[in-house]
Amino acid sequence: MNKILVIHGPNLDLLGQREPAVYGRVTLKEINDELGKIAKKNKVSLKIVQSNHEGEIVDLIGKSKKKFNGLLINPAAYTHTSVAIRDAISASGLLTVEVHLSNIYSREDFRQKSLISGVVKGTVLGFGLKSYILGLRALIDLI
Amino acid sequence: MNKILVIHGPNLDLLGQREPAVYGRVTLKEINDELGKIAKKNKVSLKIVQSNHEGEIVDLIGKSKKKFNGLLINPAAYTHTSVAIRDAISASGLLTVEVHLSNIYSREDFRQKSLISGVVKGTVLGFGLKSYILGLRALIDLI
Amino acid sequence: MNKILVIHGPNLDLLGQREPAVYGRVTLKEINDELGKIAKKNKVSLKIVQSNHEGEIVDLIGKSKKKFNGLLINPAAYTHTSVAIRDAISASGLLTVEVHLSNIYSREDFRQKSLISGVVKGTVLGFGLKSYILGLRALIDLI
Amino acid sequence: MNKILVIHGPNLDLLGQREPAVYGRVTLKEINDELGKIAKKNKVSLKIVQSNHEGEIVDLIGKSKKKFNGLLINPAAYTHTSVAIRDAISASGLLTVEVHLSNIYSREDFRQKSLISGVVKGTVLGFGLKSYILGLRALIDLI
Amino acid sequence: MNKILVIHGPNLDLLGQREPAVYGRVTLKEINDELGKIAKKNKVSLKIVQSNHEGEIVDLIGKSKKKFNGLLINPAAYTHTSVAIRDAISASGLLTVEVHLSNIYSREDFRQKSLISGVVKGTVLGFGLKSYILGLRALIDLI
Amino acid sequence: MNKILVIHGPNLDLLGQREPAVYGRVTLKEINDELGKIAKKNKVSLKIVQSNHEGEIVDLIGKSKKKFNGLLINPAAYTHTSVAIRDAISASGLLTVEVHLSNIYSREDFRQKSLISGVVKGTVLGFGLKSYILGLRALIDLI
Amino acid sequence: MNKILVIHGPNLDLLGQREPAVYGRVTLKEINDELGKIAKKNKVSLKIVQSNHEGEIVDLIGKSKKKFNGLLINPAAYTHTSVAIRDAISASGLLTVEVHLSNIYSREDFRQKSLISGVVKGTVLGFGLKSYILGLRALIDLI
Amino acid sequence: MNKILVIHGPNLDLLGQREPAVYGRVTLKEINDELGKIAKKNKVSLKIVQSNHEGEIVDLIGKSKKKFNGLLINPAAYTHTSVAIRDAISASGLLTVEVHLSNIYSREDFRQKSLISGVVKGTVLGFGLKSYILGLRALIDLI
Amino acid sequence: MNKILVIHGPNLDLLGQREPAVYGRVTLKEINDELGKIAKKNKVSLKIVQSNHEGEIVDLIGKSKKKFNGLLINPAAYTHTSVAIRDAISASGLLTVEVHLSNIYSREDFRQKSLISGVVKGTVLGFGLKSYILGLRALIDLI
Amino acid sequence: MNKILVIHGPNLDLLGQREPAVYGRVTLKEINDELGKIAKKNKVSLKIVQSNHEGEIVDLIGKSKKKFNGLLINPAAYTHTSVAIRDAISASGLLTVEVHLSNIYSREDFRQKSLISGVVKGTVLGFGLKSYILGLRALIDLI
Amino acid sequence: MNKILVIHGPNLDLLGQREPAVYGRVTLKEINDELGKIAKKNKVSLKIVQSNHEGEIVDLIGKSKKKFNGLLINPAAYTHTSVAIRDAISASGLLTVEVHLSNIYSREDFRQKSLISGVVKGTVLGFGLKSYILGLRALIDLI
Amino acid sequence: MNKILVIHGPNLDLLGQREPAVYGRVTLKEINDELGKIAKKNKVSLKIVQSNHEGEIVDLIGKSKKKFNGLLINPAAYTHTSVAIRDAISASGLLTVEVHLSNIYSREDFRQKSLISGVVKGTVLGFGLKSYILGLRALIDLI
Repeated sequence: MNKILVIHGPNLDLLGQREPAVYGRVTLKEINDELGKIAKKNKVSLKIVQSNHEGEIVDLIGKSKKKFNGLLINPAAYTHTSVAIRDAISASGLLTVEVHLSNIYSREDFRQKSLISGVVKGTVLGFGLKSYILGLRALIDLI
Repeated sequence: MNKILVIHGPNLDLLGQREPAVYGRVTLKEINDELGKIAKKNKVSLKIVQSNHEGEIVDLIGKSKKKFNGLLINPAAYTHTSVAIRDAISASGLLTVEVHLSNIYSREDFRQKSLISGVVKGTVLGFGLKSYILGLRALIDLI
Repeated sequence: MNKILVIHGPNLDLLGQREPAVYGRVTLKEINDELGKIAKKNKVSLKIVQSNHEGEIVDLIGKSKKKFNGLLINPAAYTHTSVAIRDAISASGLLTVEVHLSNIYSREDFRQKSLISGVVKGTVLGFGLKSYILGLRALIDLI
Repeated sequence: MNKILVIHGPNLDLLGQREPAVYGRVTLKEINDELGKIAKKNKVSLKIVQSNHEGEIVDLIGKSKKKFNGLLINPAAYTHTSVAIRDAISASGLLTVEVHLSNIYSREDFRQKSLISGVVKGTVLGFGLKSYILGLRALIDLI
Repeated sequence: MNKILVIHGPNLDLLGQREPAVYGRVTLKEINDELGKIAKKNKVSLKIVQSNHEGEIVDLIGKSKKKFNGLLINPAAYTHTSVAIRDAISASGLLTVEVHLSNIYSREDFRQKSLISGVVKGTVLGFGLKSYILGLRALIDLI
Repeated sequence: MNKILVIHGPNLDLLGQREPAVYGRVTLKEINDELGKIAKKNKVSLKIVQSNHEGEIVDLIGKSKKKFNGLLINPAAYTHTSVAIRDAISASGLLTVEVHLSNIYSREDFRQKSLISGVVKGTVLGFGLKSYILGLRALIDLI
Repeated sequence: MNKILVIHGPNLDLLGQREPAVYGRVTLKEINDELGKIAKKNKVSLKIVQSNHEGEIVDLIGKSKKKFNGLLINPAAYTHTSVAIRDAISASGLLTVEVHLSNIYSREDFRQKSLISGVVKGTVLGFGLKSYILGLRALIDLI
Repeated sequence: MNKILVIHGPNLDLLGQREPAVYGRVTLKEINDELGKIAKKNKVSLKIVQSNHEGEIVDLIGKSKKKFNGLLINPAAYTHTSVAIRDAISASGLLTVEVHLSNIYSREDFRQKSLISGVVKGTVLGFGLKSYILGLRALIDLI
Repeated sequence: MNKILVIHGPNLDLLGQREPAVYGRVTLKEINDELGKIAKKNKVSLKIVQSNHEGEIVDLIGKSKKKFNGLLINPAAYTHTSVAIRDAISASGLLTVEVHLSNIYSREDFRQKSLISGVVKGTVLGFGLKSYILGLRALIDLI
Repeated sequence: MNKILVIHGPNLDLLGQREPAVYGRVTLKEINDELGKIAKKNKVSLKIVQSNHEGEIVDLIGKSKKKFNGLLINPAAYTHTSVAIRDAISASGLLTVEVHLSNIYSREDFRQKSLISGVVKGTVLGFGLKSYILGLRALIDLI
Repeated sequence: MNKILVIHGPNLDLLGQREPAVYGRVTLKEINDELGKIAKKNKVSLKIVQSNHEGEIVDLIGKSKKKFNGLLINPAAYTHTSVAIRDAISASGLLTVEVHLSNIYSREDFRQKSLISGVVKGTVLGFGLKSYILGLRALIDLI
Repeated sequence: MNKILVIHGPNLDLLGQREPAVYGRVTLKEINDELGKIAKKNKVSLKIVQSNHEGEIVDLIGKSKKKFNGLLINPAAYTHTSVAIRDAISASGLLTVEVHLSNIYSREDFRQKSLISGVVKGTVLGFGLKSYILGLRALIDLI
């Protein structure tokens, strides 16, 4: 049975309360439930982690190499600042899909570059909750 | 029955032959067939156009307002240079999804900005043929 | 009798429907009617063309040299991206006035440069429909 | 009776002598006479001031709020360097038209940005004396 | 018999009349006649096209793959703005030589980059008509 | 009774020993004592935390929403690099005051931008220990 | 008795009417009254000046050296453009505190640099009227 | 008898007290005395003005055209920010020499460009008082 | 006996498996063994830590001041993004040597600046495992 | 009989051994032989020099004015760094053709500008040995 | 008797013939004669060298430390490109004056920075031959 | 017996006298003696050259290919300006180690890039004399 690691980056635990105009009203739990259903239907197992710690995310990815077949990640704020997560993904060699709730390329200047994009297979962005769903489906297909 | 306009930008007619290392071996016809199947299953009708002409694409979008419920566009090279297509999408008010076969944010500098992203609902990029499939599904759901 | 070529650039056929907050509610037909009245009063004849095609606009200007005494142009989106239209105006040697409905220098960064300004006599911008009227009057006076 | 404040920025008192290749041979007095005729015909009264002092221009605009219905300004050199005049116009809330004798966007780099454009209704540039005439007419119409 | 496609970009139909100080007095017909003579002497056949339309140039190149052995192109204004023509050349896999009448690297800033150079075999620039002659000779030799 | 969260960013535990020429000789304990006195006098309670971990600071702010009425933060080095802390403050919706011991805008280039400033109510910088005192007083008044 | 010079830069005479969304509804007189009370309580005397003239502000600071013990300045628009005021402060050797009503680092790009910050003791910004109060208190303490 | 206008820009009245490490201990009076001696020996008359007001300097230069044969100017801080003084010099057509006490090209970045240099005959910088003496001698010779 | 702190930054625990083309096949354990041998021969003791957490590295350095005589650090990805580690080294006052396995100045743009270099004694880069050996030897000599 | 100076810049003596993937396998001697044949056929005499010394190249050009009718130069690495060679060509007034073996505009960023292009008649680049042949032929024709 | 080293940089041997519109008609010999006269009158001896070789100029300065009391240098093209000459001047510790015939700050962009200015006492520029005379006089006075 | 070429770049002959605060008091002879001892112990022979001439250094490297097994180079000022030396090293194919006495990445902006780093095996910088020793040892080991 294929295993997929799902990582939610910083502040995503606050979804639903956090600037709903930008991020919508869906909660992280609801996202995870949706992902769980898709996983079930497709017979893959998920490990889902939310962390505000760059180092923790690096630890997780570093240890995932042999345990998982794919990585679905919303790096959130670390998208724009973390070379360490980029290097972790690249070192892990995992098939990776990057997702964003909002359209980062139409927001502030400092959000308009992704240090992560260069090391992932593909990116889905701007569809809110749906970004995750599309991203997970793509990842399952690719595996 | 909902109607979706699908636009393939410049040089996409050459898919399959064109730099397969970057764009894969799938042809435009195969992409269109896949899109057709999804449309059929979801009971939407598609109008699919490929054009190498910026002006033609602007014409098409300008006339689509009342005729279509959504737009799926791979602006290809015009992603990086066409303010006119951006303005056409924005003027049309159509719900729009942008797709790219390759990961434009990990290629040459001049490909790392999208003039289109600021006026679309969401973007799917880097998954090859799958970018179109994910994009169409997202668009159908949103409509 | 003096003859003036009037060119409306891309998406201007959508005026009235297109983002009225930015471009107002006046339609292209109404603008053309106003221009017609001024022309009549001043005994000049107008040829008015709207095109979404950069190449078509270049064709038009290239062929206008001996046929017209002046050019009134709203290059719209091509203001910011077309070296070809710039070169056409410069090659034609026509007395040219550039107009814009909105104040392009107070909008997005990519709209804050005009490739066209360097080869025209003068520019009128920000007055909506009035930009055209002022521009046409100035052009008639200059001829 | 509507009242309009006309401000000529620095060095415009030297018009006619100053680099005629760039600014033409018309003098400030001749410009003011032309403006006076248009005002008379349109039944508005003008107050015309020329000043080389940024602070004086800020003073004038600051005190004009209740006394005038519109502002016609050629900020000349201060176009490119004065945040204070920008703030004064914005604070005054006056309907403002910016004019330039020459085409500032086809001159030296440091002249190719206007700190003023962001807070005015519209701009007329490059027509010499005619820039003022067109600008005043537009302002009268708008009031 | 080898076949070469020759493409003249926008505004080159105006050669001879257009800014002779920059582009000289030779006409496009004269250039084509010269190219014809060289082709004849070297037993290659030429297809020569001039177009002001980016899309038309992309169409032409896209269809040239199996029909031609080489491409001689003066992309003119599109040199600096067309990712689409760049992609077309690269997709076609044709042996390509880029020529310019003037020395683009000693003109305005916006002309000092070529989006095309990265996908051609070599470039000849600054020699006026002679740029074409040298370019065609080089292309024939390379084939 | 109002509650205020006080966060000291990385390396502030070393105050007093760390580059006294830049940061002065006051220790973190002395700062905290001063803050305690002000709090007591104004009848607010303080929770004071020092952390070198970006993730920990994000955790803290994320959980503070309902528990605190205001946030006083010296983000120290993370001022210049942490989009995650910016997003946390913005997501928390807490009334926030940013303080800096030194005048960051007169130091190295990489310290001359604050990713935090865009989401706080106000900033106090350059007064050493006094920056905290002024900042806390301002926060208490605002609450 | 210590004496403090208070300088209000350009357009601050318009406070209360000027863009209240940005600057609040408090008037300059109310600010001055608040400053007067604090001064009285702390037994320092104030000289308060508002000027729209860069030169006048430079004159004032240049003559203040022996007459005052400190300078409280809101340079307003001159913050971003005046090297002369910067040099005056630096030449005067006066202990100086810079204040801003709004958070200049979260506004337009041209407001996001302060030429003044490099020569002052500290800065308080974003608290509206309170910026002045905190600034004056800090200055009194420092003297 | 030839007449030369000497203009000392902002803050130069403070020479001798102002940052002696950068500007030396010589006072403006001593500079003026030295200039007077040279003038006397060379039989030219001087009019010497110090002003902190950009507008005043523009006024002065604007009125100097027929009254003076040359201009010696130390624009001080306005070197880097005043397009108005640049335009005044250029409009006056006066033979102009620019001097600086310090070496502006080895100081802060914002001092490393001179808006004035483009319109003067020559520049002398870095020699302290001697910059003025060399500048005046050069100007007398050139006249 | 002298004590040296050795810090391996993020993802270095993956050495040997991680992109061997860039980082070689040597493992972290092998590096540590080599360092241990050198330490033994030179009679210094080592404390070796690997961490993926920026905050943990800051903690470690902050507490090392009195306990260690020198610091050998490979900041890995944090080289390019961590002002906090820079400040920690600078605050600690420890004699520090920076090492990199690869030649960071010949890789991606975002790797071509080191925030750390400004606060270390010296740097060794590009020699793989040997970078550590040379770095440790240099540090021992310097102590 | 016309005389042409041919200058080969730095490292060109190593042709054939030096990075054959970039520069091909042809040696400098072979290039010179080819050039000799063309010269002979066209009855011009050549003086050919290779030098690694910027100063030597400047000397040569400086002394060539009356002795030669044209200059063919491959400035190699000095293309990108030598203002002195640029000035020498410009001072000599010689009709000059610049050649490059490789396509410098599709290599590293620091190779994508030519200080030399602004002062030559034309440039041929990217054709390997053929660049020289085309360049010499063009030069002979132009003389 | 004081000794001064005078260095003329690249291409200055061509003065009189080289672009007289920019550099005037005076020859290097005439400049040297003028310098000789001033030296004689002031009882200093001169050693005058012209070189097109950066390395030779570095050699000369490196050996001048104990032999000369001052250096007068026109670095010409090396002004903009030679860190080596900058370092040589700085290493020599010689009192140095930099001169330029033309006003480098009003020419091409690449001439608008001087790597040399940061290590000289003062600079004289734009006065043609007179720049040397003023520079030598200043240097003699300073010694 | 292995042979190593050691090149000292410009101004290094002045070591010991030159800015000792930056470069220390050790002389070039002392460095060479140290290198000699290491070479002797390791049974390699050294050829040591110091040159201020970019061209000479290029000559040397160009001729070293078959004669030497490695190159140890301190390019000094040419680090930042010489594409020619970069190309020479790359053409020679020699195993190369770059050393710097000072930490170039913590000095002036123009020293913070190395044109050389991209073509060497590794770099040692900031350790003064020790940089050479570490560099030579690394080179010997690598051979």
